[in-house]
Amino acid sequence: MIAGIIGAAGYAGAELVRLLHGHKKVSGLSLGSVSKEGERIENVYPNFLSKISGPLVTPEEVIAASDLVFGALPSGAGEQYAQSCLEKGISLIDLSADFRFDDDEETYEAWYGKGYAIPELRKNSVYGLPELNRERIKTMAASGPVIVGNPGCYPTGASLGIFPALAKELYAGGTIIVDSASGITGGGRAPQKSFHFPECSDSVSPYKVGAHRHLPEINRNVRQMAARFKRPVPPLVFTPHLAPMNRGILSTIYIPLHGERGALSGEAAIRPPSKETETHEAEIRELYSSFYRDEPFIRVLPQGLTASTGRVRQSNFCDISVHLAGGTLIVVTAIDNMVKGAAGQAVQNMNIVMGYDEAEGLETVPALF
Amino acid sequence: MIAGIIGAAGYAGAELVRLLHGHKKVSGLSLGSVSKEGERIENVYPNFLSKISGPLVTPEEVIAASDLVFGALPSGAGEQYAQSCLEKGISLIDLSADFRFDDDEETYEAWYGKGYAIPELRKNSVYGLPELNRERIKTMAASGPVIVGNPGCYPTGASLGIFPALAKELYAGGTIIVDSASGITGGGRAPQKSFHFPECSDSVSPYKVGAHRHLPEINRNVRQMAARFKRPVPPLVFTPHLAPMNRGILSTIYIPLHGERGALSGEAAIRPPSKETETHEAEIRELYSSFYRDEPFIRVLPQGLTASTGRVRQSNFCDISVHLAGGTLIVVTAIDNMVKGAAGQAVQNMNIVMGYDEAEGLETVPALF
Amino acid sequence: MIAGIIGAAGYAGAELVRLLHGHKKVSGLSLGSVSKEGERIENVYPNFLSKISGPLVTPEEVIAASDLVFGALPSGAGEQYAQSCLEKGISLIDLSADFRFDDDEETYEAWYGKGYAIPELRKNSVYGLPELNRERIKTMAASGPVIVGNPGCYPTGASLGIFPALAKELYAGGTIIVDSASGITGGGRAPQKSFHFPECSDSVSPYKVGAHRHLPEINRNVRQMAARFKRPVPPLVFTPHLAPMNRGILSTIYIPLHGERGALSGEAAIRPPSKETETHEAEIRELYSSFYRDEPFIRVLPQGLTASTGRVRQSNFCDISVHLAGGTLIVVTAIDNMVKGAAGQAVQNMNIVMGYDEAEGLETVPALF
Amino acid sequence: MIAGIIGAAGYAGAELVRLLHGHKKVSGLSLGSVSKEGERIENVYPNFLSKISGPLVTPEEVIAASDLVFGALPSGAGEQYAQSCLEKGISLIDLSADFRFDDDEETYEAWYGKGYAIPELRKNSVYGLPELNRERIKTMAASGPVIVGNPGCYPTGASLGIFPALAKELYAGGTIIVDSASGITGGGRAPQKSFHFPECSDSVSPYKVGAHRHLPEINRNVRQMAARFKRPVPPLVFTPHLAPMNRGILSTIYIPLHGERGALSGEAAIRPPSKETETHEAEIRELYSSFYRDEPFIRVLPQGLTASTGRVRQSNFCDISVHLAGGTLIVVTAIDNMVKGAAGQAVQNMNIVMGYDEAEGLETVPALF
Repeated sequence: MIAGIIGAAGYAGAELVRLLHGHKKVSGLSLGSVSKEGERIENVYPNFLSKISGPLVTPEEVIAASDLVFGALPSGAGEQYAQSCLEKGISLIDLSADFRFDDDEETYEAWYGKGYAIPELRKNSVYGLPELNRERIKTMAASGPVIVGNPGCYPTGASLGIFPALAKELYAGGTIIVDSASGITGGGRAPQKSFHFPECSDSVSPYKVGAHRHLPEINRNVRQMAARFKRPVPPLVFTPHLAPMNRGILSTIYIPLHGERGALSGEAAIRPPSKETETHEAEIRELYSSFYRDEPFIRVLPQGLTASTGRVRQSNFCDISVHLAGGTLIVVTAIDNMVKGAAGQAVQNMNIVMGYDEAEGLETVPALF
Repeated sequence: MIAGIIGAAGYAGAELVRLLHGHKKVSGLSLGSVSKEGERIENVYPNFLSKISGPLVTPEEVIAASDLVFGALPSGAGEQYAQSCLEKGISLIDLSADFRFDDDEETYEAWYGKGYAIPELRKNSVYGLPELNRERIKTMAASGPVIVGNPGCYPTGASLGIFPALAKELYAGGTIIVDSASGITGGGRAPQKSFHFPECSDSVSPYKVGAHRHLPEINRNVRQMAARFKRPVPPLVFTPHLAPMNRGILSTIYIPLHGERGALSGEAAIRPPSKETETHEAEIRELYSSFYRDEPFIRVLPQGLTASTGRVRQSNFCDISVHLAGGTLIVVTAIDNMVKGAAGQAVQNMNIVMGYDEAEGLETVPALF
Repeated sequence: MIAGIIGAAGYAGAELVRLLHGHKKVSGLSLGSVSKEGERIENVYPNFLSKISGPLVTPEEVIAASDLVFGALPSGAGEQYAQSCLEKGISLIDLSADFRFDDDEETYEAWYGKGYAIPELRKNSVYGLPELNRERIKTMAASGPVIVGNPGCYPTGASLGIFPALAKELYAGGTIIVDSASGITGGGRAPQKSFHFPECSDSVSPYKVGAHRHLPEINRNVRQMAARFKRPVPPLVFTPHLAPMNRGILSTIYIPLHGERGALSGEAAIRPPSKETETHEAEIRELYSSFYRDEPFIRVLPQGLTASTGRVRQSNFCDISVHLAGGTLIVVTAIDNMVKGAAGQAVQNMNIVMGYDEAEGLETVPALF
Repeated sequence: MIAGIIGAAGYAGAELVRLLHGHKKVSGLSLGSVSKEGERIENVYPNFLSKISGPLVTPEEVIAASDLVFGALPSGAGEQYAQSCLEKGISLIDLSADFRFDDDEETYEAWYGKGYAIPELRKNSVYGLPELNRERIKTMAASGPVIVGNPGCYPTGASLGIFPALAKELYAGGTIIVDSASGITGGGRAPQKSFHFPECSDSVSPYKVGAHRHLPEINRNVRQMAARFKRPVPPLVFTPHLAPMNRGILSTIYIPLHGERGALSGEAAIRPPSKETETHEAEIRELYSSFYRDEPFIRVLPQGLTASTGRVRQSNFCDISVHLAGGTLIVVTAIDNMVKGAAGQAVQNMNIVMGYDEAEGLETVPALF
């Protein structure tokens, strides 16, 4: 098959190029760029020299040449290409936020500043978090071309950490806090002050505190999972931070616990964790493991290990560690923001849509450095 | 005066050397080291060459030569020197945890693995967080030599962020979450795998989740401040992270809010912050500002700025920004872990004990890089 | 085939594990460690979890189980295993310096502090820089098991930059300067002060100036290539630096030029490069390109690009850019020190020895970050 | 006195602000900016909050308010302000390249693309490298207002490493190689791709190889020092590199040696350094030390230490280490590019011009991190 990428000159697009280049089912790539149309990909990314080369063409040419298309344009810029894909009868994996909110245009508009250009496209769209929606993606893809709204980076790490707490009835009610740190590639390739080396290296900075666009997306996922298991919908607070590293998102998630476990809170700050805490923690770990038993890209870490971004580098894994403290369940998730948080998950979605092995092209063993 | 430093070869000790070298009231330094006694400080720290030089002597020699001593030894290693100081009639600023818990030996023992060597020293000791205890330090120092238990790095950033929420009756009850990220210098100078460049650069890692020794110290401070204002004592959860930077601690603190403000929680994840949120936020910012009105080293940041470690680098400042989201008050504090989190605060304590201007020797304008 | 790794717990060993895991001809791995025998590889490297697992066994067990063995032990520690391999009739790719100097034991002893344990092993050994010795490796492997002395990281980048200048008669005589910067992984996994994050991040430091053990290895390669083309043997000066990055070696090499081109030197510092300089530079670039025409892992960069470590990350490429200034040819080479500088080149040698496609298992597209 | 800064919003300007804030003779600052006129300095640099504040005014207002002015504008943008200063009768320390070439307009034009706007200003200008020109600066300042052309960052580190080799007749003729690595702040505050975190962190990259504008400035300095001691003028080759750190320039300089020492070249790559090499090295170190005996900011390091940027951080020091290898003298110099390489040297020049203690305001002890 020929895979097309619209927006191949951005970081997520280039990561897609890299991943798809090694994908056994992909025989060729068609690369498009709006801003760099006419240039060659190996000039835009000289790291590709002698491996990947070719001109950046128009989105229309990409669609014409491809059997499936990835959209890696900014939110709000690509609905017409989605329509063209459907018209041609091919599927689109879209990395923008445009298809992440299904028919809830109101929420999308509130956070992204304008409504849908072509609302009816949502009849054929599905939110592409496989751990939430795998069956739905498959079913829709079985009956025709589909638009997959590929999840945001923060929502992926946050949602995967919260789901089992809802499903396994650990969550007791009360606010869930998501505190995340992202590598700088999350900001894309366009130079700006926040990502200028002297301004961001050797510093950790929160930004858009309580007001980041990924909050409603996390909320959407969590609400949906709560509904599935008939659980209360948790209020959410989300704080993203910029950390001086290239890749990775670490999310530390605080979930109030039920009953006996929750009752431990009074003790927390006074004495070190007791044997009892450890036992509860092991039980919860087991519940998390069983929830994700069949997931190819989720690793619930054994006791003694804490999730960290350095151990999922360049891979599609989401590492999860669970900890219990003061009646609060602390779940830590780590992903590579460019892989499971963007391009890798998009390839995973392609694999699901096309009926390929879900891990095809995503076999990279995490590099420690 | 002659200032002595026991443990001058460690990072906190060396930072003390640097700060005291520029202190107008300090005419000379006496430097001691247990492990490197006999070596010269400028060989241990060649960055000091031509500015600061001299042999590292024994702790006993330091005490004999000094008018005030700083202890920068590991916890549990220095009580006998504290006693010697008192016997000689000079004060000690101790950077270990040994004098941070006053007469609560039980808590100290539970977390540090052994009890006090000389319990009665606590009659002359005081916890040295000036923003909490300034008057007490002064009073005690007025009547004789004193041992100041210099605060831990995380407890400094965390406590300063929580205090006004208690004092100003913003805190509504429920668990307060402290999520912190520290630069690698926090781990000291002894090489170990966690601080080996390839293992920690380009990664963010939580550690000792819910079980870090600084938790009971934060708890102590918060309980004490709650008592002062007759507020409920908040249960605390604390997660430290290691971030790939040299200096700095960023703490993002989640505090459940009272009444009308707290009632906003249901809305949080659904719509972007409203004008109302901004108004509440401004009121809270004003309360924080007024609480710290007379503090020389606390900067409550104006609307639009978020605290980040890169802006307090090399200074004794604690930057604080306040944010409101989903009925939760999010307070972000940033300190330089080696200055306000260690050596700088120790100098501040010396200034208080000796009756100097509290900012003497701590005038460094933060370096952006 | 089963590939064995002795020394799998070190950085080079672990990188071998990662690369061989994806190698189509390798059906299984046997992992050995002297210091961590009995532990499991996925506990030593938790980034491997769910991808690669198994116990670390003794070197003897590795040899018994394998069809080819990689040695990743410190220099001087593995000759007996080399002998065991030969006795069993299997080849060894050795990453230490023990087989890099052929029968020149004197040079080895002068720099490594002791002589060969089993000198006669050198009858079956060959220096494994494919761009220098491919045919010899093939010939030897054709007639029985062979020991390949896998090159050092610095010598790889340096030698590849110098070879064409000798072969193409560009070098005019006089000292060749090799100025190199390495990422911190080059120092291995054992924590020590030089690689402690606060000591090496945000700093560039030369070390072992003019006295690094890789100097005689570069010298050996260069002398050999000079002999092949009957050119004068250049005196060499080599300065390694430590740079605050994980991977990569950049070598900036200064080569005095012949004749007309060399005569430009007087002008160099006075006026910007002329058109004539550019023409000469293009000619030299063409000579470099033609010299490496058939090499699968060497990329001679086009005009306008300068080699940098960030563009070969995680790949087996050696990027080369050539520049002309002041009668001096400046050649810049960039490799990933852990791949082309260690484990990748070892896999390349295995491929040559076993008659596989030379690029098998080394297809990774360089990651920009 | 009131010190003025034109261009206070750039990195060099802001570093000047920081340094002058602590300068005992400076009672006030007047801050100007062309691009950010009307904004406040503490908004442009929130790290200054509560320490330094005030509006950014026009260059004309700065000149009117000041007793001495610093110019921190791009090259070619500030000659008219220089003229205004002279007319007002006050001195200017100019950090651009406009006054670094004295009356050699031809060289300036060749490298900077246009000639002098007001050539006659050079009657009152002097190149401000104190170690080269201290007496001349003093003499000129004694007879009226002066324009000091503050040196470039690379030329400072390179020239200081070469001078003693000329003066002490160590240099034997032949090309001198200067290989330098700079921190990213050297590129200024304007975001661009080369300084975008994901593009430059974890990579070392040469740039403008053999064609950097600082080459003619190094050449100028070296020629002038050669003339002073009646030595041959060395041809120069200069390669700058970008390294992933904030501050610092490391220069590794290769100087061909005379006579007996130079004759060692043949041996270099064959055997480790001999006792004889060490003796010669010690003699050369002594010559370097004696040359800089009275310099307040130069530290010639003792045997066993190698200059590194991490040890001069935030200080005005230039560290120098000397090494001997293969008949080549290798001199390594390290400066903080923002201090001795820019703002610190400018303050040093102000001190000389005004007759203050030369080290006033520059007492910072280097921070190890």
